[in-house]
Amino acid sequence: MYYFNSWNKELKQPFGAIKVGEIMKVNFKTDRPDVSIKFIIRRDFGQRHEFDMQKISDELFSASVKFDVGHGLYFYYFEITETSDWGNVQHFYGCSGLGGEGVLYVAEQDVTPYQVTVFDSEDPAPDWYRESVFYQIFPDRFHNGNADEKINAPKPNSFIYGNKKDEPFYVKDENGNIARWDFFGGNLQGIIDKIPYLKNLGINAIYLNPIFSATSNHRYDTNDYLQIDSMLGSEEDFKQLIDMLHENEMHIILDGVFSHVGKESRYFNISGKYGDEVGAAKNPDSPYFDWFKFENYPFDYKSWWGIKDLPEIDKDNESFRDFIYAKDNSVLTKWNKFNIDGWRLDVADELPDTFIRGIRENLNDYPDKVLIGEVWEDASNKISYGQRRDYILGNSLHGAMNYPFRDMIINYLNGNRSAHDTAYNLMTLSENYPKDIFYNNLNNLGTHDTERILTMVGEENNALAVGMMFTLPGIPCIYYGDEAGLTGGKDPNNRKYMPWDTIQEAKHQLYKDWTSKRLSENTLKHGEFSTFFTENVLGILRYTDDEIFLYLINPSEEDISIDFETITFLQEFNFMADLKEKLNHIDISRKSSVDISFKL
Amino acid sequence: MYYFNSWNKELKQPFGAIKVGEIMKVNFKTDRPDVSIKFIIRRDFGQRHEFDMQKISDELFSASVKFDVGHGLYFYYFEITETSDWGNVQHFYGCSGLGGEGVLYVAEQDVTPYQVTVFDSEDPAPDWYRESVFYQIFPDRFHNGNADEKINAPKPNSFIYGNKKDEPFYVKDENGNIARWDFFGGNLQGIIDKIPYLKNLGINAIYLNPIFSATSNHRYDTNDYLQIDSMLGSEEDFKQLIDMLHENEMHIILDGVFSHVGKESRYFNISGKYGDEVGAAKNPDSPYFDWFKFENYPFDYKSWWGIKDLPEIDKDNESFRDFIYAKDNSVLTKWNKFNIDGWRLDVADELPDTFIRGIRENLNDYPDKVLIGEVWEDASNKISYGQRRDYILGNSLHGAMNYPFRDMIINYLNGNRSAHDTAYNLMTLSENYPKDIFYNNLNNLGTHDTERILTMVGEENNALAVGMMFTLPGIPCIYYGDEAGLTGGKDPNNRKYMPWDTIQEAKHQLYKDWTSKRLSENTLKHGEFSTFFTENVLGILRYTDDEIFLYLINPSEEDISIDFETITFLQEFNFMADLKEKLNHIDISRKSSVDISFKL
Repeated sequence: MYYFNSWNKELKQPFGAIKVGEIMKVNFKTDRPDVSIKFIIRRDFGQRHEFDMQKISDELFSASVKFDVGHGLYFYYFEITETSDWGNVQHFYGCSGLGGEGVLYVAEQDVTPYQVTVFDSEDPAPDWYRESVFYQIFPDRFHNGNADEKINAPKPNSFIYGNKKDEPFYVKDENGNIARWDFFGGNLQGIIDKIPYLKNLGINAIYLNPIFSATSNHRYDTNDYLQIDSMLGSEEDFKQLIDMLHENEMHIILDGVFSHVGKESRYFNISGKYGDEVGAAKNPDSPYFDWFKFENYPFDYKSWWGIKDLPEIDKDNESFRDFIYAKDNSVLTKWNKFNIDGWRLDVADELPDTFIRGIRENLNDYPDKVLIGEVWEDASNKISYGQRRDYILGNSLHGAMNYPFRDMIINYLNGNRSAHDTAYNLMTLSENYPKDIFYNNLNNLGTHDTERILTMVGEENNALAVGMMFTLPGIPCIYYGDEAGLTGGKDPNNRKYMPWDTIQEAKHQLYKDWTSKRLSENTLKHGEFSTFFTENVLGILRYTDDEIFLYLINPSEEDISIDFETITFLQEFNFMADLKEKLNHIDISRKSSVDISFKL
Repeated sequence: MYYFNSWNKELKQPFGAIKVGEIMKVNFKTDRPDVSIKFIIRRDFGQRHEFDMQKISDELFSASVKFDVGHGLYFYYFEITETSDWGNVQHFYGCSGLGGEGVLYVAEQDVTPYQVTVFDSEDPAPDWYRESVFYQIFPDRFHNGNADEKINAPKPNSFIYGNKKDEPFYVKDENGNIARWDFFGGNLQGIIDKIPYLKNLGINAIYLNPIFSATSNHRYDTNDYLQIDSMLGSEEDFKQLIDMLHENEMHIILDGVFSHVGKESRYFNISGKYGDEVGAAKNPDSPYFDWFKFENYPFDYKSWWGIKDLPEIDKDNESFRDFIYAKDNSVLTKWNKFNIDGWRLDVADELPDTFIRGIRENLNDYPDKVLIGEVWEDASNKISYGQRRDYILGNSLHGAMNYPFRDMIINYLNGNRSAHDTAYNLMTLSENYPKDIFYNNLNNLGTHDTERILTMVGEENNALAVGMMFTLPGIPCIYYGDEAGLTGGKDPNNRKYMPWDTIQEAKHQLYKDWTSKRLSENTLKHGEFSTFFTENVLGILRYTDDEIFLYLINPSEEDISIDFETITFLQEFNFMADLKEKLNHIDISRKSSVDISFKL
């Protein structure tokens, strides 16, 4: 009787997010003759706006709205007024929770609206980035490039693992606090030495976990933003690493950790390691004093998630902003001059929008640098600290780490989410994100903050997870060691040392095949995205005007033979006839996948 | 009215312990004419024996008893019978608690008797031993002799300290159990490299903490008695160490740890590291099964002090005795053939007397090897597990670690025990021990099991403690690093790495001066011992027929000028007149000592 589908080109144009100033056209279907329809738009946390829809045929109402009242999220639904013998009756048609086809509501306050993301500008990211296959390196755990594996400048009161195969272990005191930091001793020279290995694997970009002077092995507790950590090497080593990567047509982005510093940092200096003058906790006249919030000077201070090792920065402080990005001699400027190719912002949710925009402004001087943010949820509608974030609406992040994809992949492969629901989830995310952002997201199957993918999905599903990462839109990013067969649950077991002597050949080949396919198939890098499903099979569709790439995944315990008629496509295409011919008799064995590419 | 003094040569002959078959003569003084005196001897945990004393002058009763009824402890006192108008009255004269002058008791059951130790035979220890200054080395913490300080064969899942100056730290799990073992990586080559250093310090013997294959850094959890721990080096390294020491006229004794083994040992093999066949916990048919006591096979077993890492051995088991010392291919025999110079038996209290005698028997084939035992109290009257021990009565230990001396030195220097009480303590110990044992004891100011002496007595008293160790009878044994100025409380802080770069010159010189004095002064090596005191000053007296060495210690806050008349000597000597001349005007500054030697 009533019908709308946000994924149907006949009912909504354009698909997904729109740019400020663009017109969104919606058509609403009904076979009832005696109704009038209003198109309702709510501004985010704001006003309700009503637009009359025009009846353009017996079964179709239409409205066109120009979104020229600012970027942000807008939420829409339909108000249906039926005339009847006993006064008019209102119904509402809104979103089911995910996009696509909607549902009817009786009461307006119950309506889940559709989301439309309105962004400021396209933000395609540098060309090199869109052509990349990334590799994430946790520097302490990758490779020690010194002869005899000598450890550079071990930190006072720290432990070095006796063997490269030792299981990572947190050394804690009786109160459960870290008592000593544990190191394997990987360093920059080690990465330089392994450039041929990475190149052979098909990697052309590196995301490096923090490398500035710090106390811990993860180095998220920055002690000095202007120094390379001496265990990792020197500025000369760093320069050599970047130059060698570039000579090999590889790129590198750094981890920017600006929400907090180490309590032993020169900025905070709680135990006076930087002398008696420097640092907020040692000297109330310190130039850094205003960066922090002391509740009771000096030992009671605001810290990141209450972790006293990590005093939190007031990111609204001007002198901090000057120091990080705004002044000529800022942290960003120093390292940008080393020709790094971009930054990944740690805990982007905890950086004010204006802070991230300030960083982006700094980077705009270097059009080839990319800016990625750590966000754990759908970044389009993330609310943090009571505020809707605008970091994907242009002039901010190029993209985010795509943890939602990781969740979808794991849930689907482990049988915790159906093919149907997974397809709907994927489409909804693609609808919510500005297209450039969706294609710029860094797709991680695992990171230093999560369990490893092999541990999460098991041996049999591992290849399927890898295939999904490489075929979904976004930039694939391999977590070091996944290609070697490393396993591991949560931190610290996800941070084992790279097992150079026991790299599993089959896994390595799997990744190598996919990097090769990714880099050679235009559809995988730039093709449009859609998805489809049968009862147990999920399909990923990538297409351009003249090519199609299909990836079909069967994580079930049964071999499956697919008939085209049983497939649900979430969108309609004019190449459906061609597809039908190709897919008529596709057989997929249990726990395996099929990929097909063909010219139209 | 009544008087006896066990230290007075006119009242007791000989002084101190006696040999089986010797006659002990006691004289008892009284000015009462109407008394009869009986000399009472109680056998240890045994019978009461009565001997009538003969009145040999108006003021003296005398008795002579031949001790030819077996070795062991005997306890004596005097029964005095006074005749009176209304029946006879009995009094008892016994020991005050320490030796020397006694006290009168009314009731016999209240009497504290004097102890006389009756030993089987003299046991002078090898000549080299009596001429030694020892140095105790905890191998992991002394020196790494590898180029670039590479660590030999680190153990699986172990930690290496990041820096040599790091504070030792136990890595524990949530239950307080050791989770990882921590190593600095000292090794045998490191000791070889430091032989010139030790020689220059005046060291001519080494006591080495355990070196056989083990899991921990202390290696008291033996995994294989027949292997040198691979982190320490090879058998070739060990052979070279011994040969180099001998070439330098130095000696070496090893730590024999026979009361328990490591749970991961080939004998117990709890987690199967030695395969599925070997070891009592993996295989009830194991040849080692009977060495252990399982309460509930295999995980509930008797262990040393309840520490599950250390399954306890049944030392009465014949096959264990065969393995350790009784058979041709025994553990002792293997290592004796490397020309080591003796053994220190760990937890001697927990080894049956017959086990220790068995070991001594093995060593009797090598008259130059010494056998020392770990005993924490006065070894002459130690009771362990309900049994009086006989390990200092001949054909057993040559000597024990002299922890009682350490306690006396620390208590005296810290002002917790007076000069008077300390002198009485020293004399009592010298009286209780067979003389050879007293001179064979290893005098430690600190070991791997105690706080370091500098930490215990502080900077100002440190030199006094060192002087006492070198002037008291027994073999001085420097705990590695004490001469460098290392501090540290209990384990693990007493096990810091040797600070090769920051050896404190003054402390080093202090030790060097004393080793030189000790080795050049015959009185210090072989002289008789006595002691004396004033209110605050303690004196140590060493003498031969023609020489005297005096060491006077003033740990008080006041400068002290000593008049001979104020000194209390605990024994009388015929050189008192000479002494008086020398000591008439001795001035000792606060916190300092004076040593005087002169020919008679």
